[in-house]
Amino acid sequence: MRKIVVMLSMLGLLVGSSQAQPAFPFLIPEQAPNQPLSRAIKRNYTQYNSIRPESNELYSQFKYTKLKGFNYNDGDGTISRRDPSKVIFENGQYYVWYTYRHTKTPPIGDARKATATIASSDWDLGEIWYATSVDGFTWQEQGVAVPRQAKPALGWRAVTTTDILKWQGKYYLYYQAFSEISGLRGDDCPVALSYADSPDGPWTPYNKVIIDNGKPGEWDQYSVHDPYPLVHNGKIYIYYKSDFDQRKNIQPSIVRMQGLAIADNPFGPFVKHPLNPVINSGHETTLFPFKEGVAAFVIKDGTEKNTIQYAQDWVNFDVQAHVEMMPVAAGPYVPDAFTDTKDGRGITWGISHFTNAAVNWKANHSVLTRFDADLSRDVHDPNMKNHFIKYTPAQHYQYGLSEAQRKRIQQENKKLVKQVNE
Amino acid sequence: MRKIVVMLSMLGLLVGSSQAQPAFPFLIPEQAPNQPLSRAIKRNYTQYNSIRPESNELYSQFKYTKLKGFNYNDGDGTISRRDPSKVIFENGQYYVWYTYRHTKTPPIGDARKATATIASSDWDLGEIWYATSVDGFTWQEQGVAVPRQAKPALGWRAVTTTDILKWQGKYYLYYQAFSEISGLRGDDCPVALSYADSPDGPWTPYNKVIIDNGKPGEWDQYSVHDPYPLVHNGKIYIYYKSDFDQRKNIQPSIVRMQGLAIADNPFGPFVKHPLNPVINSGHETTLFPFKEGVAAFVIKDGTEKNTIQYAQDWVNFDVQAHVEMMPVAAGPYVPDAFTDTKDGRGITWGISHFTNAAVNWKANHSVLTRFDADLSRDVHDPNMKNHFIKYTPAQHYQYGLSEAQRKRIQQENKKLVKQVNE
Repeated sequence: MRKIVVMLSMLGLLVGSSQAQPAFPFLIPEQAPNQPLSRAIKRNYTQYNSIRPESNELYSQFKYTKLKGFNYNDGDGTISRRDPSKVIFENGQYYVWYTYRHTKTPPIGDARKATATIASSDWDLGEIWYATSVDGFTWQEQGVAVPRQAKPALGWRAVTTTDILKWQGKYYLYYQAFSEISGLRGDDCPVALSYADSPDGPWTPYNKVIIDNGKPGEWDQYSVHDPYPLVHNGKIYIYYKSDFDQRKNIQPSIVRMQGLAIADNPFGPFVKHPLNPVINSGHETTLFPFKEGVAAFVIKDGTEKNTIQYAQDWVNFDVQAHVEMMPVAAGPYVPDAFTDTKDGRGITWGISHFTNAAVNWKANHSVLTRFDADLSRDVHDPNMKNHFIKYTPAQHYQYGLSEAQRKRIQQENKKLVKQVNE
Repeated sequence: MRKIVVMLSMLGLLVGSSQAQPAFPFLIPEQAPNQPLSRAIKRNYTQYNSIRPESNELYSQFKYTKLKGFNYNDGDGTISRRDPSKVIFENGQYYVWYTYRHTKTPPIGDARKATATIASSDWDLGEIWYATSVDGFTWQEQGVAVPRQAKPALGWRAVTTTDILKWQGKYYLYYQAFSEISGLRGDDCPVALSYADSPDGPWTPYNKVIIDNGKPGEWDQYSVHDPYPLVHNGKIYIYYKSDFDQRKNIQPSIVRMQGLAIADNPFGPFVKHPLNPVINSGHETTLFPFKEGVAAFVIKDGTEKNTIQYAQDWVNFDVQAHVEMMPVAAGPYVPDAFTDTKDGRGITWGISHFTNAAVNWKANHSVLTRFDADLSRDVHDPNMKNHFIKYTPAQHYQYGLSEAQRKRIQQENKKLVKQVNE
């Protein structure tokens, strides 16, 4: 009988009395009640770790605070900091690495006009610099960690978008190594590596490609970006992003998804996971151990943007929370990133970037910022768990119709009114 | 063999060569390729109607435009307009109905201090007014459609949050009928009905409860809000919202979900669907026929807020799109709301409200606004389909840490630094 009720209901045919089964109760049961449920209510019990966002450990709002200690030359576009690494805590202080560009002029925006000193894009001619902080708000820039190398070594043109691994007491920076001006051939920059005994360096370049582009025809054949290492099951898990499906006549032509490569030691070989891509959306890689699994930010781009996802097996991700105003290119402080934990505790803050910091395109540069959240099992901050941001009317009206849209709408409307009057 | 690959992969055990199966292809196949896929990639083929948001007919950005023609007494809080109905097009013009409050003073914010002329909340002492427009941007307010009735008739205190049905050439306004000051007992206001031969009225009150609160212990025992009628399968489908699970010591104590009640004719009886609730999140009801099914906005509240969902059978909803800055309490123009279509075409615009229009809480009132989108199968506007809103740094910094949060973070940080230094 129950089967028939479900089938009829799914067909939308059942409009019988609500006596046929008990109504869903006023006090929401902790476990799914033993009665037919709509698909949405089933998801409450099967997909999400809580029916209430505010008690969902993977749900949070994000709060932003300006960082102190970084000079941007009055925002004239000659200094840029972007794509921060995870934050780690060593020697009584926090460390963050990031892409640093300091050029005489802002980026020219055209790879064909770039020179040895003029950057094509914001990250072109970038180096990996680092900063330290005791409180996470005020930072001391310490200078370069990984410079560009002499031509033609790997990464002679730019080294960018780094992330940190600590493994058996040593430190490893993975990054995108450009051996060509960014924009000439797309962003073709295999993953390279430098290593050190201390987070303060000195850093030794390994000078070999650590994760290369895929073979011709494979999803990651042209780009492997944003390497993001974590330690799991005694191995190094590097999540990364690729841009693929570049087709003519489709705007935007590129789809961004995320994959995984695994190795027994920092120098590889890294073996790409056979189920790649493992995340179907997002713009940058940001993950952290959570319980026995891993959680991922899915930022900005794609069908499942603005979600936080979870994979118990570190491979098969489900949406766990729908969030707003996510930190872009977030590099969180992940205390258990490298402890091979089976009981990940989550995160509460990190460094992210704004790529739209400039007053106009000519002064194009990026700035680092701090974000705070409650995605930790050890913190309980209800003020981080509001359901929504209440944007003001003025904020809404910043996103108005274009002239072309307004014209289209007026024409469609005239047609409608005319039809009726005829 | 394939089964074993999948099982091993799901356990995260398989790190073998990518030779074991072909890598996911660079050009994304239209149909799921015949090889093991990660759960995220499977969703691309099973859950969403497109792998790209920009070609997903149920994905859109929202653009906002101020409406012309409404007077708010300089925003002093004495005039409020909120909770618009669907927009319909009749007699060569658009019609919208809404909650209108015009009181000598702004709402007092405390039900115990409300009087016959002082409103407790923004919607208390509200009436249903309407306006017409030829272009959808400039409106002429036509005055009251459904006034409050003489005490003790149903809705003597306030009639609010209306929506329109056209059925066999006649017009029906469903609304929340308050027979008590809002806030005294929660928002206990069963669904009532007035009907007319013309959208210009006159409207005859039916004076009977059309959809009542649930029985004691049922999910909707205290409230049935936001009645939203559509026509499907020769019947009237009214979606509505309830607030339930009010528990002490849980903040917020209320969970909002949406249900469905169905009738053969406008006067009922409306039978609540046995699988209610059918939508597990959201703050107001906004739906429209889409293909053979129905699409729903899930606005503001709950686990699946900021999504657009779809139910082929009008009952079992799945997330179809993740969106931003949704119109609040949206009343879209739904050309095929009442045509019993099996080929719903979607929507492109409507009226929504801002409840935070006032400069301060003392002048509390709401304003109507216009929103535009491309959720129509007949419109193709790529400029409505950007993946994300690029909020400025300043917009981010509007959502900063509170003093209490900052103190908590500093304390946690001190503890961490101290541990290391000991």
